[in-house]
Amino acid sequence: MAQLNYHIGNFDQNLQKMLKATADAVEQGADIIVFGELAVTGYPPRDFLEFDDFIRKSEAIVQELAEAATDIAIVVGAPSRNPVVEGKDLYNTAYFLAEGKVYAKAHKALLPTYDIFDEYRYFEPANEFNVVEYKGKRIALTVCEDIWNVGNENPLYVVCPLDELQKQNPDFVLNLSASPFSYRHARERIHVLQANTKRYALPMFYVNHVGAQTEIIFDGGSIVMSPNGKVFDELPYFEEALRIYDLEEVIQNETQEQQQEKDKMTLIHDALVLGIKDYFRKLGLRKAILGLSGGIDSAVVVVLAQRALGAENVRVLLMPSQFSSDHSINDARQLAQNLNVQYDVVFIEDIYKSFEQVLKPHFAGTHFDVTEENIQARTRGMLLMALSNKFGHILLNTSNKSEGAVGYGTLYGDMAGGLSVIADLYKTEVYSLAKFMNKDKEVIPEHIIIKPPSAELRPDQKDSDSLPDYGILDKILYQYIEERQGPREIIGLGFDEALVRRVLRMVNKNEFKRAQVAPVLRVSSKAFGMGRRMPIVGKYLA
Amino acid sequence: MAQLNYHIGNFDQNLQKMLKATADAVEQGADIIVFGELAVTGYPPRDFLEFDDFIRKSEAIVQELAEAATDIAIVVGAPSRNPVVEGKDLYNTAYFLAEGKVYAKAHKALLPTYDIFDEYRYFEPANEFNVVEYKGKRIALTVCEDIWNVGNENPLYVVCPLDELQKQNPDFVLNLSASPFSYRHARERIHVLQANTKRYALPMFYVNHVGAQTEIIFDGGSIVMSPNGKVFDELPYFEEALRIYDLEEVIQNETQEQQQEKDKMTLIHDALVLGIKDYFRKLGLRKAILGLSGGIDSAVVVVLAQRALGAENVRVLLMPSQFSSDHSINDARQLAQNLNVQYDVVFIEDIYKSFEQVLKPHFAGTHFDVTEENIQARTRGMLLMALSNKFGHILLNTSNKSEGAVGYGTLYGDMAGGLSVIADLYKTEVYSLAKFMNKDKEVIPEHIIIKPPSAELRPDQKDSDSLPDYGILDKILYQYIEERQGPREIIGLGFDEALVRRVLRMVNKNEFKRAQVAPVLRVSSKAFGMGRRMPIVGKYLA
Repeated sequence: MAQLNYHIGNFDQNLQKMLKATADAVEQGADIIVFGELAVTGYPPRDFLEFDDFIRKSEAIVQELAEAATDIAIVVGAPSRNPVVEGKDLYNTAYFLAEGKVYAKAHKALLPTYDIFDEYRYFEPANEFNVVEYKGKRIALTVCEDIWNVGNENPLYVVCPLDELQKQNPDFVLNLSASPFSYRHARERIHVLQANTKRYALPMFYVNHVGAQTEIIFDGGSIVMSPNGKVFDELPYFEEALRIYDLEEVIQNETQEQQQEKDKMTLIHDALVLGIKDYFRKLGLRKAILGLSGGIDSAVVVVLAQRALGAENVRVLLMPSQFSSDHSINDARQLAQNLNVQYDVVFIEDIYKSFEQVLKPHFAGTHFDVTEENIQARTRGMLLMALSNKFGHILLNTSNKSEGAVGYGTLYGDMAGGLSVIADLYKTEVYSLAKFMNKDKEVIPEHIIIKPPSAELRPDQKDSDSLPDYGILDKILYQYIEERQGPREIIGLGFDEALVRRVLRMVNKNEFKRAQVAPVLRVSSKAFGMGRRMPIVGKYLA
Repeated sequence: MAQLNYHIGNFDQNLQKMLKATADAVEQGADIIVFGELAVTGYPPRDFLEFDDFIRKSEAIVQELAEAATDIAIVVGAPSRNPVVEGKDLYNTAYFLAEGKVYAKAHKALLPTYDIFDEYRYFEPANEFNVVEYKGKRIALTVCEDIWNVGNENPLYVVCPLDELQKQNPDFVLNLSASPFSYRHARERIHVLQANTKRYALPMFYVNHVGAQTEIIFDGGSIVMSPNGKVFDELPYFEEALRIYDLEEVIQNETQEQQQEKDKMTLIHDALVLGIKDYFRKLGLRKAILGLSGGIDSAVVVVLAQRALGAENVRVLLMPSQFSSDHSINDARQLAQNLNVQYDVVFIEDIYKSFEQVLKPHFAGTHFDVTEENIQARTRGMLLMALSNKFGHILLNTSNKSEGAVGYGTLYGDMAGGLSVIADLYKTEVYSLAKFMNKDKEVIPEHIIIKPPSAELRPDQKDSDSLPDYGILDKILYQYIEERQGPREIIGLGFDEALVRRVLRMVNKNEFKRAQVAPVLRVSSKAFGMGRRMPIVGKYLA
């Protein structure tokens, strides 16, 4: 089982990785090596799939792999062309390569088309199911979602591929997956695999991707299930791995139950570190910059960045204004020193005044309002972008999910950046992550965690001046965003009606802001971005 | 036939509009009134459809319409629930409301899931087809895409709904559409309707939406086809209309052929004016602001804005720097005066210098580069946003498709704004539109059209210093973006190989920039935004 970190469209690199793993597997005496779903192209290739040129390149790689499949069978995911004129042009295919050729193919039948998934945009579903016979064994070859409709109990689908394949008496199941991480997904995955083994009593080899592709993070955690429903082995989370299994040992397993810890904050922490690391690596970048305000959000992001990229590749700016408290500057400085990252203090007051001066004739008769707050936030954004442009740093965005949801942020100011690192964490989860980071020693100065949150854009400002208590706000947001409950249901849970309506209105009225933010590293079951598609001019609940 | 401008999620307003049209139709003696696809919710409702609360609201409106359907039958599109557990939860349904109740329903069978369409994300396709019998007539009731697979020749689909319905001898076809505008779509629509009448020899009533929903513009142009394949009538483009037809007259039509002009620039002009107008109206806004550089892009946008919103609602800033030419300022001033819009001149040099001063210690030993260019662009963006925040104007973005494609623009600078007005027009098309605007009298000063384009961010800068000639660039971009041709095919058309590879690399390397821009009013068959989904970390051709 080869759990690898592919790169979308980087055919040569993906090929070299797979050839290397194949050589290792041959050396260790394996009969079959299994890679992930659409491993040749990386997942998700999105609209690259609409380019014939892209498909031709993918086909050439499959051909090269087929030629390498002489001492071993290679099972790998790649798009294949649908020879029938009617229907979509492509299948999402598991290629079984052996004897130096394409020995067999199995197409994906269940095409996820929800949340971040757009598979029916590109692929025709399989309509026939055949086991692959190889070296005396009958193999049920499936692709990802194909095993997620156990006994047809998933209401999304009308076909159950393994029910069909079971009729042909397979000896074991191979599943090629590209199953994105969310902090609950590792648990769900085990449950689905157990439901499958319970129904079919077959050994199963579930091979996942690892690595991040822009916003989507793959956590690995590939699984070998014994027919008795016990986990024979689980591959590591968030790193590449190649492991060889003996089919008989997997079948005879009586007691083994190898599962890793699935603590929410551990998973989220490691996912975000990988998310940053791969975003930079896959774009050929190294260095990050961000502003440290002395608040909790930027504190958590700088720790993640330092762990992902190394202290030498992270630079921070402290940009106090007349509204910044002394403790904010001191806390930020202490944090930068704890992490050993380069920091500079840049005062924004002179720039702010030059804007004020230029705008004075046009602002005659008006008062300090959100405009002036935004000028401060945008001045900071501009300074960060200036250093980013001059020295090749990428600006990391530090917005959290709560403020993104209600629009508590300044476009082109604190909402600027190339990657939104914690924008899928509610404010209360940001605190949990900070405490998790401090569990062994104080990385983030304690004062950052205990003081009340403030944007510090006007005298004595607190988040609580404009927003409900985060403890309540986050629960309402979770019901609306992750659970897709309406006002009636949320009020029914005991929340104040006026508050619920106000919060939902804020969420829906701020689609225009969220439409312009950097990709959000996804760690929940419903992140802002490609998995949540809302009309900007919509008038619903707004 | 009621060709109306709906508003997504604004149930009450949509209902009132439909009730008013129904009363008018009753007064004029109509037997049936037909509205568009998903008219109750507006199109596209996107992930609002995942909220049970949203569906309940829609059902209540359908019920109200049913109760109003006493003296007339009302045919209207709305989601309906799929009673079967397996498959998607909803159908995209044409409701036939008569005798005060839901008299019949027909579900959409062909669910577009490509480009801007995500219908299989939400809907189960219909699997049965029945004509509706009403007042002695047999009616083939279809929804939008259902008539776009004439004789099963559309390779996307395996079912042809009208082939099925034809077996039941219908008397005429009703088609409820929400068919988005592109500058070629009006022609395609007529061709498809003619292909249908040729095959079935039936009168057809094709009812479209009109109005813009964020980036998607509906042009109206609803059509009545006689069975002989001639256009009996075409409703106006870009405005609401209610017209009554006598079935016998439509059938007996021998010679009538009522088509409107389909000139590309006329259509694009009117579409963009409507796009701006509806974006503002549906968000409850009135006033726009933009920067006038003296260049062609901002010139075209301000003309469109003035026509959409009225001169009194448009404000412009002229923001010269030391690199601005005198003629740019004079041209911009002349344009503002021609349009009678409020303009102010704001010099950015002091602000620029304050940034320079603050950054000096950090920029020691570096030279003027794109950083300093970006500071100028971002200073302008900040000034525009400051006025926008203070006085409630929405900033209109003036980027064109050519520069968006190759990343020739500054994030948070000239790429800022709430709506990208001309970002689906290549630079050469922007020139065509400017000339179109000047065809009767000089609205845009001639000098703006004839001078070489320049960003004026450094001395004597020209676009041609960094970019290929737009005449060539735009052709390559069109092949790659609209036609989805790969490098081999484009080079095969006679373009220089190195240039093609450079252009495609620029396009693919700038996905990160396009991910952060305001929604783009869509006028082509492939606009940046929701209809073109590319991986940011993808390494294909990059």
